[in-house]
Amino acid sequence: MKILTNKEILNNAVQLVQRAVSIKNPLPILAGIKFETRENQVILTATDLDIGIRCSFPAEVIVQGTTVLPAKYICELFRRLPELPIFIEADAATGSVTIQYGQSETRINGYPPEEFPELPLPEGINSFTLPGELLKEIIRQVVFATGNDENRPVFMGVLFEINGSELQVVATDTYRLAWRKVIIENCEETAINLIIPGKTLNELLKIIGINEQIEVTVTKNQILFVAGNVWLISRLIEGNFPKYKQVIPQNHILKVRLKTRDLLDATERASLLAQVKSPVIKLNISENKIIVSSYSEAGRVHEELDVYQEGETLQIAFNAQYLGDVLKVIGSEEIIIELTGPLSPGIIKPVGDNEYLSLLLPVRLREE
Amino acid sequence: MKILTNKEILNNAVQLVQRAVSIKNPLPILAGIKFETRENQVILTATDLDIGIRCSFPAEVIVQGTTVLPAKYICELFRRLPELPIFIEADAATGSVTIQYGQSETRINGYPPEEFPELPLPEGINSFTLPGELLKEIIRQVVFATGNDENRPVFMGVLFEINGSELQVVATDTYRLAWRKVIIENCEETAINLIIPGKTLNELLKIIGINEQIEVTVTKNQILFVAGNVWLISRLIEGNFPKYKQVIPQNHILKVRLKTRDLLDATERASLLAQVKSPVIKLNISENKIIVSSYSEAGRVHEELDVYQEGETLQIAFNAQYLGDVLKVIGSEEIIIELTGPLSPGIIKPVGDNEYLSLLLPVRLREE
Repeated sequence: MKILTNKEILNNAVQLVQRAVSIKNPLPILAGIKFETRENQVILTATDLDIGIRCSFPAEVIVQGTTVLPAKYICELFRRLPELPIFIEADAATGSVTIQYGQSETRINGYPPEEFPELPLPEGINSFTLPGELLKEIIRQVVFATGNDENRPVFMGVLFEINGSELQVVATDTYRLAWRKVIIENCEETAINLIIPGKTLNELLKIIGINEQIEVTVTKNQILFVAGNVWLISRLIEGNFPKYKQVIPQNHILKVRLKTRDLLDATERASLLAQVKSPVIKLNISENKIIVSSYSEAGRVHEELDVYQEGETLQIAFNAQYLGDVLKVIGSEEIIIELTGPLSPGIIKPVGDNEYLSLLLPVRLREE
Repeated sequence: MKILTNKEILNNAVQLVQRAVSIKNPLPILAGIKFETRENQVILTATDLDIGIRCSFPAEVIVQGTTVLPAKYICELFRRLPELPIFIEADAATGSVTIQYGQSETRINGYPPEEFPELPLPEGINSFTLPGELLKEIIRQVVFATGNDENRPVFMGVLFEINGSELQVVATDTYRLAWRKVIIENCEETAINLIIPGKTLNELLKIIGINEQIEVTVTKNQILFVAGNVWLISRLIEGNFPKYKQVIPQNHILKVRLKTRDLLDATERASLLAQVKSPVIKLNISENKIIVSSYSEAGRVHEELDVYQEGETLQIAFNAQYLGDVLKVIGSEEIIIELTGPLSPGIIKPVGDNEYLSLLLPVRLREE
């Protein structure tokens, strides 16, 4: 392989795909990034076997070929290359790869390219398209609610439930749940359910730009996201996602409307003085006010927020971190909180928007 | 104590003094920040007994007094306070301090203020003034060369050597040395030698603005820096700084001039492929070229830089990290390297400037 390219293109591509490099994996080749040429394109690939990222860029391909370079060295090196034409030449006999720039060169020992695992691109029958910005918003609004218990893999994923042109996206760790609905176009099949690992979606957030269309292709056990010249491919999580709809309360005894920022600020201050092990904050709702309070050995917080209230008076407590997580991603200036009792799940949703909601289990209050 | 102030002033002062808070110290009170009023001023103080930082600000003092609050809570809380008038009121009987903003309040348990150590401000006979920007430059140009061996405290400090209006500043860890000379005004005494802890100077870097004059006051064992409304006071290091002048070579057999950036970039790339334990890079100087090279099991770097050379041909090796440290702070577009032999210290200085130099001991080359 011999190619001629420049620092910026090369560096951007390497920084993108290196996100999938697996340093801790027992398979040493996974610490490498594969370079392969295809006519006048160079394709970079990295994978940890759960996720694979590919990025292609145009280059002057002088000799076609393939090589695998250790990500650890080339990420740092390519970031520091001068703004000069850069030749990369792999010696298939020795496995040594020469990177040449100006009067200088660096030689790095490559991995045997035949050891690099194949990254099969799914040729799915099911595919649809989403604007990058919308996909990012959807992911941010639900992915925080995924769990991290490896023994319950279904909860580590996000359910994408497609029914005709309706996409519902749900995550839950059983203590909280986040749900989002959007209308999609061009979906070829009428009913698909898939569970995408939260980790995949978190990587996707970092890769996709807001001004591009993301093409999503699904097979039985894999999903492929294509964003311009970047592919992210991931395994899906097997199993049945819990029937979440039945846990969402359909009515309430109390409804308040207030500014998102007010509650987030009060929650963050109150969590500073909440118990360290279990950061609980209490909401006392009555007479068009919420009193947000917390206490610990270090002190106590007592904040009063003006709200618009309909219904009964109620006292309820939530995990401060969980409440803050929702308020940070809800994306609307005002929210509505609907409650059915001190020990029943609370619902938080944006004002005037029925396409998003988050559910939070309350914490049982101990007597102070 | 009861004061009325606002979030910005309060938060700025707390973020400044908290740099001296000692969380690991066995004396619990040192995890606190002392608030004391003096007429219509509030003075905040924190100290770890090595360094103390004080910051004063004007406020409406309603009741004079003193209190000590845990830095851990108030740093976070004050950062998150709303932009509203803020009352702070200490209840001397209970030790509880109420922070009130709008309809809300936070109560934090304070420390007994009488336990907070006195921070004696030195009333020194020796004082001088330096522009903040110059002092920052001086510190950056030498402090990297201090050592970190607690058994040799003198090398953990920076020598400030004042002789009339001449200030020479030196640091060395015995493997390298950095020296800077400046002319100061208004120094009242003719000869002072003091060793300031490197840690103090690193903190000072973060505190001083570039547009202020820094007043420096020295006693036998303490130094005080005053930057506007901020005081930093530090102990000095006792002991004799080594006679450094005799290790600086007075002549050379080889002198090269080159662009700082070129050598720094090549050094950083070469250090990526140098041995991990001892990142050595080799400089081969001949025929108006420096060849910068390194090698390890992972590969090798070979870079050629055009230089202006006077004198003999030479091959010498340096610790890549140490060479990079100097090049990052030298501050001139071009440098001069003077060498007297492969095993003698090398000198690096800015072109056309005799007020700064750095000395680097070479590394003995093993045969490859």
